[in-house]
Amino acid sequence: MTDDQAAEAEPVTKKDQALQAAARCFVEEGFHGSSMSRIAKAAKMSVGHIYHYFASKDEIIAAIVREEEIKADEKLAYFRSLPAEALHEALITKIDEAACHLSDMFHSVLMLEILAEAARNPEIARIVQELDTSMRNGFIEIIGQRMGLSNAEARVEVLFSVIGGLAIRAIRNPDFDRRSVVPVIEGVIGQILSEH
Amino acid sequence: MTDDQAAEAEPVTKKDQALQAAARCFVEEGFHGSSMSRIAKAAKMSVGHIYHYFASKDEIIAAIVREEEIKADEKLAYFRSLPAEALHEALITKIDEAACHLSDMFHSVLMLEILAEAARNPEIARIVQELDTSMRNGFIEIIGQRMGLSNAEARVEVLFSVIGGLAIRAIRNPDFDRRSVVPVIEGVIGQILSEH
Repeated sequence: MTDDQAAEAEPVTKKDQALQAAARCFVEEGFHGSSMSRIAKAAKMSVGHIYHYFASKDEIIAAIVREEEIKADEKLAYFRSLPAEALHEALITKIDEAACHLSDMFHSVLMLEILAEAARNPEIARIVQELDTSMRNGFIEIIGQRMGLSNAEARVEVLFSVIGGLAIRAIRNPDFDRRSVVPVIEGVIGQILSEH
Repeated sequence: MTDDQAAEAEPVTKKDQALQAAARCFVEEGFHGSSMSRIAKAAKMSVGHIYHYFASKDEIIAAIVREEEIKADEKLAYFRSLPAEALHEALITKIDEAACHLSDMFHSVLMLEILAEAARNPEIARIVQELDTSMRNGFIEIIGQRMGLSNAEARVEVLFSVIGGLAIRAIRNPDFDRRSVVPVIEGVIGQILSEH
């Protein structure tokens, strides 16, 4: 992983700078391998400075998950803005894009670290599950109410499995040409979004 | 996570005992949080003893992945033993089972740890990717040659995404009744295994 990939967005505030350095540490050395002093060093700040923004590593993860939540809300707002008859096509297009752009290993590994930590740490589990519940409810509303599909909860569960599963494939099978899965993914999403 | 879940099979050899203790440490404290001395303590053995079996933590992960490989080979052998016309049904049944039995959080978290480490450590990446290649080739043979489906590589890629993605859902949405996804999963697998 190069520094370029790790630091996609320029940090705008000192707090962002600390957050990005912490994310880089988690990816490079794991959540448990990243002490606050190590994060401070990576952020080129004092340990006291890091503690000024975040009382603990848990709070850093909470902030990272909050950023995910903002991105998720933007996606939901986009789908909500579309007329019902455009939703099927728009969902397929977005998921095709996600399937082809799995080169963001940094983000995938960060999510793996957070999920592994969620299984150990009830506070992180709560944060991760809250984000999931909010995204899930958003998509259940879109698929169930707006698209009028039955069994929307189970459909969303499988949809989220496919998207999460695709992100992991980039680690297990990195040389694969992702574009070749597009027709198969389109069939699968079409199936999830159809009544039979 | 209870100890019962962590120590499913009774260790039969001292080496197994070390391996199970290491897996438990990786799950409970992360790969980077688990030193060889910590693993020794968990295994109730001396550090020298652990080093006698495994020269490094990388070798421990290699041994864990080798156990996955044995399980994967058993699955492949089962599918190979079936007549071609029974494969569609057998694949759906096995994946339904996998979708419903996501209570094995210990295994899911161990895999997350290993995958996150694979993204950091080229030797672990090589081991993980070798296992994936071997499973993938086995399923490409079953789906492509025995079931006669086109584009088998992409179908297997999506099949593996769905299965891997389902395992992660147990962390993100633990209270969900997994059985309710069965009809959706069956539709999806049917779609992956059909020509249009």
